[in-house]
Amino acid sequence: MVIGGDAAGMTAAANARRRRDDLEIVALERSSFVSYSACGIPYLVGGGVDDLDDLVVRTPQEFRDQFRIDVRIGHEATAIDLDARKVEIRNHLRDRTLSLGFDQLLIATGARPRRPDLPGIDEPWIVGVQTLADADHLLGVVSAGRCERVVVVGGGYIGLEMAEAFLDRGAHVALVEMGDHVMGTLDADVAAGINDALRNRGIDLRLSTPVKGFEAASDGRGGAVLTEAGDLPADLVILGLGVDADARLAAEAGVTVGPTGAVAVDRRQVTDADGVWAAGDCAESFHRVSQRPVHIALGTVANKQGRVAGINLAGGYATFPGVLGTAITKVCDTEIARTGLTEQEAAGAGFESVAALVDTTVQAGYLREPGTMAIKLVAERGTGRLLGGQIVGSTGAAKRIDTVATALWSELRVQDLIDLDLSYAPPFSGVWDAVQAAARQLLKQLPSG
Amino acid sequence: MVIGGDAAGMTAAANARRRRDDLEIVALERSSFVSYSACGIPYLVGGGVDDLDDLVVRTPQEFRDQFRIDVRIGHEATAIDLDARKVEIRNHLRDRTLSLGFDQLLIATGARPRRPDLPGIDEPWIVGVQTLADADHLLGVVSAGRCERVVVVGGGYIGLEMAEAFLDRGAHVALVEMGDHVMGTLDADVAAGINDALRNRGIDLRLSTPVKGFEAASDGRGGAVLTEAGDLPADLVILGLGVDADARLAAEAGVTVGPTGAVAVDRRQVTDADGVWAAGDCAESFHRVSQRPVHIALGTVANKQGRVAGINLAGGYATFPGVLGTAITKVCDTEIARTGLTEQEAAGAGFESVAALVDTTVQAGYLREPGTMAIKLVAERGTGRLLGGQIVGSTGAAKRIDTVATALWSELRVQDLIDLDLSYAPPFSGVWDAVQAAARQLLKQLPSG
Repeated sequence: MVIGGDAAGMTAAANARRRRDDLEIVALERSSFVSYSACGIPYLVGGGVDDLDDLVVRTPQEFRDQFRIDVRIGHEATAIDLDARKVEIRNHLRDRTLSLGFDQLLIATGARPRRPDLPGIDEPWIVGVQTLADADHLLGVVSAGRCERVVVVGGGYIGLEMAEAFLDRGAHVALVEMGDHVMGTLDADVAAGINDALRNRGIDLRLSTPVKGFEAASDGRGGAVLTEAGDLPADLVILGLGVDADARLAAEAGVTVGPTGAVAVDRRQVTDADGVWAAGDCAESFHRVSQRPVHIALGTVANKQGRVAGINLAGGYATFPGVLGTAITKVCDTEIARTGLTEQEAAGAGFESVAALVDTTVQAGYLREPGTMAIKLVAERGTGRLLGGQIVGSTGAAKRIDTVATALWSELRVQDLIDLDLSYAPPFSGVWDAVQAAARQLLKQLPSG
Repeated sequence: MVIGGDAAGMTAAANARRRRDDLEIVALERSSFVSYSACGIPYLVGGGVDDLDDLVVRTPQEFRDQFRIDVRIGHEATAIDLDARKVEIRNHLRDRTLSLGFDQLLIATGARPRRPDLPGIDEPWIVGVQTLADADHLLGVVSAGRCERVVVVGGGYIGLEMAEAFLDRGAHVALVEMGDHVMGTLDADVAAGINDALRNRGIDLRLSTPVKGFEAASDGRGGAVLTEAGDLPADLVILGLGVDADARLAAEAGVTVGPTGAVAVDRRQVTDADGVWAAGDCAESFHRVSQRPVHIALGTVANKQGRVAGINLAGGYATFPGVLGTAITKVCDTEIARTGLTEQEAAGAGFESVAALVDTTVQAGYLREPGTMAIKLVAERGTGRLLGGQIVGSTGAAKRIDTVATALWSELRVQDLIDLDLSYAPPFSGVWDAVQAAARQLLKQLPSG
């Protein structure tokens, strides 16, 4: 039995079926959609994706027909009884309760947007963005023209992407961020370049501005976001404050939840409960650089963990080798990416580190109007081992975070980065790629350099 | 003493100076230019770079002032006497001959475009593209309007880039290629996609068309390229047949030239002659995958080898760790890249290999009009070790060759590629990056997959 029908759950189910023809597989999904790209939601809302169905990888019927998986939408697991080996289920479609037994159980209950405990937080015009149902709701708001003034609270990935989506829909967009820079998962120095991009594109950016609460308008249409620096009227508020693992069901059943608030799993996605697995946004990952459990709610991780869980569930052997915290986004033509540890995270993980931040060009500097980029690399002082990288730049800049991620994966040192045989032609980089330009600066910070 | 004042020679000279204040450093350069980006020449000719001087990294005067390097332009080394420790030099500026002694000698004589021994090859309207003097000549041709009909012979990097440069200048451009596909350094299957891009952009592409010779026009303006399939009139012919190491000076002095025709060096850029070093386009490199000497005439290699030679020349210790044969280019909005071994090269190097060619998208497939790309990965059958990768695709596709190159560097296996924590967001890739999509297909070809 699989609880949760998105990336992790359905990838696991499909992989299990490919290995074992004889398994009886049931997948429960409380919403109406399974197996969709949640990452595509901002682009759907912004108009870059034509139709909600385009985000659906496979329908329930396709899973039934092609994989013989008993997919039950509108079915919400409400309790797990580990001793009796059964799950209590609310069928929202028929408004009744049922109970189903299992031999093996995969918990893939995902994550949910953080909703801070503030006055007015439950107003209906304050929405998080996580599921396709959320997307459907927002498309309705857009088509009804009820989003002239949008306030996004929180300047992380989803916050920035949603801000741009509503700009693309012609809205006036304000972005309120408590911290002193957007993209809190980047160091402040490298993230500084994002501010201008947002403001130039017309976003009303309010940094260092904590939200005090929300207040409905007297005419019943939207309301206002209350801050120390004044009130911001809003037809719609988007919460972009990150997500928490939805591990409630697992915790209530007695499955161990780790220090990150997500379900603790081993490298085969096994929880500490017999025959119970977890994968995706509800589960922890092992961070290969900090060597600590982390909660990374991303589609890449969910797909990989789902694949590993599915293979193991069917009696195969697969391990999830951990994450680097690689992430990328694009907002207002500015590309943003990170992998490994930031300088701040490296300190938090106990590393003595050195860092180099280099301002360079995306293409050869002598081409007319080359793109610009900032790249920051962090390394361990004593060993010269690379610890992480961050990039903010124009088109073509950010995907090279994958070079840094691959180097981190193999625990390369700064000198190795300089040695790498990376590609070069004037439309793509300088003769020393930006990654190597930063590595050359970083080498000078090292005791041996 | 340094012979040859471009990337390798001047990088070495500058690095040597940084380490040793007391060295007397002379650099001989037969042309008028030192330290320039030869890779930028097609963009200069095409108009994407404003001025020839923009390609110059440092002038002779800057090397004199900032590095106290005695740069002598217009000085051509004509012979090396290893026993007497001196070099015979022709000073073209004053038309006289001189001789200079050395303790340590760096040979950085570069490469020269191949000129096949065909009738008419010495006509003045048939030019190779290698030096800034060549670029200066071509800019003169462009500004004089004497390039209405341009024929490019050879469909490699330079050939394709020059073809586009003259298209950008409004010329009618034909490209004649002896082989059955352009980009002979790629496998035929993945290179096939380039043909349409060239033709759609208006290039008259003639594949499988060997050139028989060249014939001057009776009016003295250009002539024709003679082929089995008819004659092609041309005001200007660009030779894009690749380059050979210019190792003549070294060979005549008794320095060993390797099987590739380039000067044989060890990992510290030492030749087999005492106190004689070589670096850049005239020197061999060690290929980390085939484990054979190769001749790779690229600026990335020249810069790295020059850095290593300079550090060692000054008594330091540095090694050049070898190449992967990584290369990238862009023609008519089609990006092309490769690293490691092609399927054909893998067979030639004695590997039993498997390969997967995947057609996928550059961005998430559900975005409106996602870019397309073909990616091919090659691996060793028995071990699953990655051997190489090739990419042909639209904007944003090719730079991810660096991910493959970094993986090759660390001798990762196909399964490792699938495990990598690469970046994903809809504007940048599918949830499995194209590299991983190809790796997943490739895994199925492996005995263990």
